[in-house]
Amino acid sequence: MTIYKSEKEYKRDLEKRALLPEGFKASSIPLGFIPQEKTVDTTLKMDLSLVMLDLPTEVFADVFIRNIFPGTPILIGKKLLKKTSISGVLVNNKVANVCVPTGEDDAYKIINKLKELNGQLSADFFYTSTGVIGWRLPVKDITAALPQMISGLEFGSIYNVAAGIMTTDSFPKIRSCTLGNGRILGIAKGAGMIEPNMATMLVFLFTDITIEKHVLQKLLARAVEKTFNRISIDSDQSTSDMALALSSCRKPSVNESDFYSALYSVCRDLSEDIVRNGEGTGHVIKVTVKNAPDVKSAVGAGKAVINSPLVKTAIFGNDPNVGRIIMAVGDYFGNNDVFINRKQVSISFFGENVFSNGCFYLDLEKEEKLKNNLKETELDSVKKGYPEHDRTVNIIIDLGMGEDQADVLGSDLSYEYIKENADYRT
Amino acid sequence: MTIYKSEKEYKRDLEKRALLPEGFKASSIPLGFIPQEKTVDTTLKMDLSLVMLDLPTEVFADVFIRNIFPGTPILIGKKLLKKTSISGVLVNNKVANVCVPTGEDDAYKIINKLKELNGQLSADFFYTSTGVIGWRLPVKDITAALPQMISGLEFGSIYNVAAGIMTTDSFPKIRSCTLGNGRILGIAKGAGMIEPNMATMLVFLFTDITIEKHVLQKLLARAVEKTFNRISIDSDQSTSDMALALSSCRKPSVNESDFYSALYSVCRDLSEDIVRNGEGTGHVIKVTVKNAPDVKSAVGAGKAVINSPLVKTAIFGNDPNVGRIIMAVGDYFGNNDVFINRKQVSISFFGENVFSNGCFYLDLEKEEKLKNNLKETELDSVKKGYPEHDRTVNIIIDLGMGEDQADVLGSDLSYEYIKENADYRT
Repeated sequence: MTIYKSEKEYKRDLEKRALLPEGFKASSIPLGFIPQEKTVDTTLKMDLSLVMLDLPTEVFADVFIRNIFPGTPILIGKKLLKKTSISGVLVNNKVANVCVPTGEDDAYKIINKLKELNGQLSADFFYTSTGVIGWRLPVKDITAALPQMISGLEFGSIYNVAAGIMTTDSFPKIRSCTLGNGRILGIAKGAGMIEPNMATMLVFLFTDITIEKHVLQKLLARAVEKTFNRISIDSDQSTSDMALALSSCRKPSVNESDFYSALYSVCRDLSEDIVRNGEGTGHVIKVTVKNAPDVKSAVGAGKAVINSPLVKTAIFGNDPNVGRIIMAVGDYFGNNDVFINRKQVSISFFGENVFSNGCFYLDLEKEEKLKNNLKETELDSVKKGYPEHDRTVNIIIDLGMGEDQADVLGSDLSYEYIKENADYRT
Repeated sequence: MTIYKSEKEYKRDLEKRALLPEGFKASSIPLGFIPQEKTVDTTLKMDLSLVMLDLPTEVFADVFIRNIFPGTPILIGKKLLKKTSISGVLVNNKVANVCVPTGEDDAYKIINKLKELNGQLSADFFYTSTGVIGWRLPVKDITAALPQMISGLEFGSIYNVAAGIMTTDSFPKIRSCTLGNGRILGIAKGAGMIEPNMATMLVFLFTDITIEKHVLQKLLARAVEKTFNRISIDSDQSTSDMALALSSCRKPSVNESDFYSALYSVCRDLSEDIVRNGEGTGHVIKVTVKNAPDVKSAVGAGKAVINSPLVKTAIFGNDPNVGRIIMAVGDYFGNNDVFINRKQVSISFFGENVFSNGCFYLDLEKEEKLKNNLKETELDSVKKGYPEHDRTVNIIIDLGMGEDQADVLGSDLSYEYIKENADYRT
């Protein structure tokens, strides 16, 4: 178990993880306060960040959201899949560039300027924007800042970029894994609108390990499915989520399963970081559904628990209300016509048996113990600016019906979540 | 539009609606504070309520929840469907009697005692319990109170029963409709765990209009599908929801479509009452999805909007954040593989066009107007104990793809919701 006593301590850990793989440079600059005239009367403190390869690469992979109103970054990103070489990833926060009449024009103006400055016109850039939906990018301010950003590119650390892509996140998220002679480095952004299929979540993965493009695509899709697609903060999906992976192919290849294990561990750790830093997260909830008839219903039942507002508010209040877990699991199977024998279901909560043979096993003493466990798992990351610990609220649901299993991660539902989201724009 | 200035004014309105159809008597008594030894250290202020026919009826219908961990009332209620005659409905609040080892035994002890006191051993009673899941019924206290409750039975008003079945509800819900020479009267209970398929919601409908049992069952199922199954407070379904309808058949029959219209209007008004009195409801949101390819996707898209925590928190904060509506609609169609042409979708918010041709139509003036509309739609029912008005937040989503339409009703997500649910038991 990791316990951080200060922001400094957490940052020291991040800096150890932040080493860029060979061939990658990074830069991030604050654009200062930009007036946003279109809608509400406010200004935006926007950051612009860039991770660039010193030589364009042909090896890149991505997973995009499935929203019928995708953001411009997704629309443009999908076109890039047909391109053969990529120079890097540009990111701005604060404005999402979604469903704006000039959205694609605005983005291409910025991308073209960046290509021109880079001098490699045939190699493209992914350009992702995250922030308020419906607002327009400040094109002039961004293009004017590009030369300064490029001149700031440095090998070494991704720390500033991980910090520069944040919106409502309260701490940067960086994970890495050494592998063969190289490494896989990942950063992520996202704190609300987090649910399956990549929700206001940006994940960028960089490696120097040589790998074929189609293999990277396959392994990325598999790792995303088992990690980012199994977390939920508020069941809402963004219009612009994506996970990108780029390789500079500077280091020797490793075998596929080793690469997958390393990629999976980086994705799993980042996905837990995202939940831990969720908007208003007061507890990270880990639900393991085991002995399920299939993976789909294991994930579905787990998601039903972590997305239930009544389960989430009970956990926020440190109330071990097992009845609500039963309610959520029972609804999921009842409404999806999956046969489960309720007499074979058992549930453990922090390792305590609380339900089996169709009945609750609860008493005052057990409730007190569970209440204390919940208190010990509390987080106050929003105010502190770093995660204090990596404890989770552990719920195991044994369906006694099959052999499949899935873990899902979610957060509780707190006053802080409402506070952040009732006045995010104003 | 109805505006209530005081609890007294609202109560006067309810009393007008509360007249029992011919053949029905009602009674409700407080049981006082009963110690609940099983789990947390607290006492319950339980009420016991009864609606009884002066002669048993063979005409009754019901719709039950689809949860694989149904409450004992559902398990017993389903068995009653095979019985030929029913004497009435007994209800207790505060303890739900779900997944308790002695659940069925406890309930039958009470039902049998009631039958014995009633002297009609062949006619059964529906017995519904609502409250905390996992706790045991105080059988002795309930059976001891039955004689007093029966001697209190009176023709006339259902008001005391509508008040006696409440848990976290802050006001009673009664609706009625005159029809032919008789009437349809409905009461409802439910304020949280409210979503499709009957969530911690109890609905009891009484009529004296003569009707055949199978017709009543058909019309009830149809009305529930279009009303109670299209509301959501928190997307959570209870383990014990049900809608029951009983007829004393004392008045002449009417034609089927007239009966359905009256039944539908009582169900629609009760379902709106439930949302308006939802736990912490600060706004009632009405989403109309029109020109949809089918009813299922119209309901699905509408539910996606009213269940989105981000939409709900924005509305709570009087923030007309149209981007989040787009996000929710787009997720629903993107993840359910329903083809929608995003360029044909248009959205109006309080009658203002805010999105069409794939783009937002927003400006500062329009946002100000929408913000004021949201403020005028605010509710403070929880503190006041009565609904101040019947205004709704009106969102119309025109998919431009077909001819089907559905209305769904939901509530915002407030601090009050979390407060109520983080410490409901303790």
